[in-house]
Amino acid sequence: MSNFLPKSIRTLIEELSKLPGIGPKSAQRMAIYLLHSPDSRLKPLGESILNLKKNVVFCGECWNVAEMDPCPLCSDERRDKSMICVVEEVLDVVALEKTGDFKGLYHVLHGALSPVDGIGPDQLKLEELFARVSPGIDEVILATNPSLEGEATALYIQKHLQNSSARVTRIARGLPVGGDLEYADEVTLSRALKGRSEF
Amino acid sequence: MSNFLPKSIRTLIEELSKLPGIGPKSAQRMAIYLLHSPDSRLKPLGESILNLKKNVVFCGECWNVAEMDPCPLCSDERRDKSMICVVEEVLDVVALEKTGDFKGLYHVLHGALSPVDGIGPDQLKLEELFARVSPGIDEVILATNPSLEGEATALYIQKHLQNSSARVTRIARGLPVGGDLEYADEVTLSRALKGRSEF
Repeated sequence: MSNFLPKSIRTLIEELSKLPGIGPKSAQRMAIYLLHSPDSRLKPLGESILNLKKNVVFCGECWNVAEMDPCPLCSDERRDKSMICVVEEVLDVVALEKTGDFKGLYHVLHGALSPVDGIGPDQLKLEELFARVSPGIDEVILATNPSLEGEATALYIQKHLQNSSARVTRIARGLPVGGDLEYADEVTLSRALKGRSEF
Repeated sequence: MSNFLPKSIRTLIEELSKLPGIGPKSAQRMAIYLLHSPDSRLKPLGESILNLKKNVVFCGECWNVAEMDPCPLCSDERRDKSMICVVEEVLDVVALEKTGDFKGLYHVLHGALSPVDGIGPDQLKLEELFARVSPGIDEVILATNPSLEGEATALYIQKHLQNSSARVTRIARGLPVGGDLEYADEVTLSRALKGRSEF
């Protein structure tokens, strides 16, 4: 980085460019934008980063991030406690909650099985999931990503739970709504055919 | 934003998505990434944002950002003080310095004339530029962007300086190196033709 720039700006650009999806050019643009921002904008951003982990805990039930344990979703009496939707990451819960279509509980694995990256069952919240699947649970929905790692993780969970009393289901894989059949890859198309239903 | 997430995470996502080029999805990804980062990563980032403006001043000569006034570039004895390169933003200085091809001084306007956005000559460091163009200055290079606003600003400066002793030049506009003639727009092509030189 050009060393005629003030040190605080250089540090900021350096740190910003470590974030996912942020290249050096975007980091520069963001830093100059912040430099022209009033302190009333810098303060909440800087402080929210410094205080990020204060008051943030993992829910001991679903392992989502929350301010309290159990989290608001797990302690919500209106939610259906007989269904558990298993996801890889916190943002997957955010995405599913936006649909408003699922009223059960979640379980965040915090990753997916990936031997190449050295992520085995012990690195994920899998034992915690198996401990939750007691006779009161009717259905476990596997909502891991439709990727190699996500499918492997789903398969691993399904094998582990096949003798439990709960139904184990997998979210549908097929053509995304608004998508174009012509441009879909073969694996997606093949999945869409296999998963067809009565019209 | 999903209100079951902890407040510090919601604030962070909100503030990050105000940055240029950062949408809500990228802001979410960045926030979760930071949540999984150790404090040793969060601290420099948060502090560099909070301390951004401390120790940062504008150079009273060239109006670049610096830790001292005059800035390292203006006070560098080895630089050619007879040339001033006029740019819109601080990052333009960074980009030009990377080429290593310019050894004169800079002048940062902090914007370009844009009547639609309410940016007139008074909002830019134009008077400060005109005051710098004394008989000791041989050349003023107009390196504002080749956009509508940049061209208008260049024209405005050129008109103002036409009776001064300094040569006023404009950086070349033409095909970018590695670019493709077939895909160039008409204005660029027309500029490339007009700006042709002996081979």
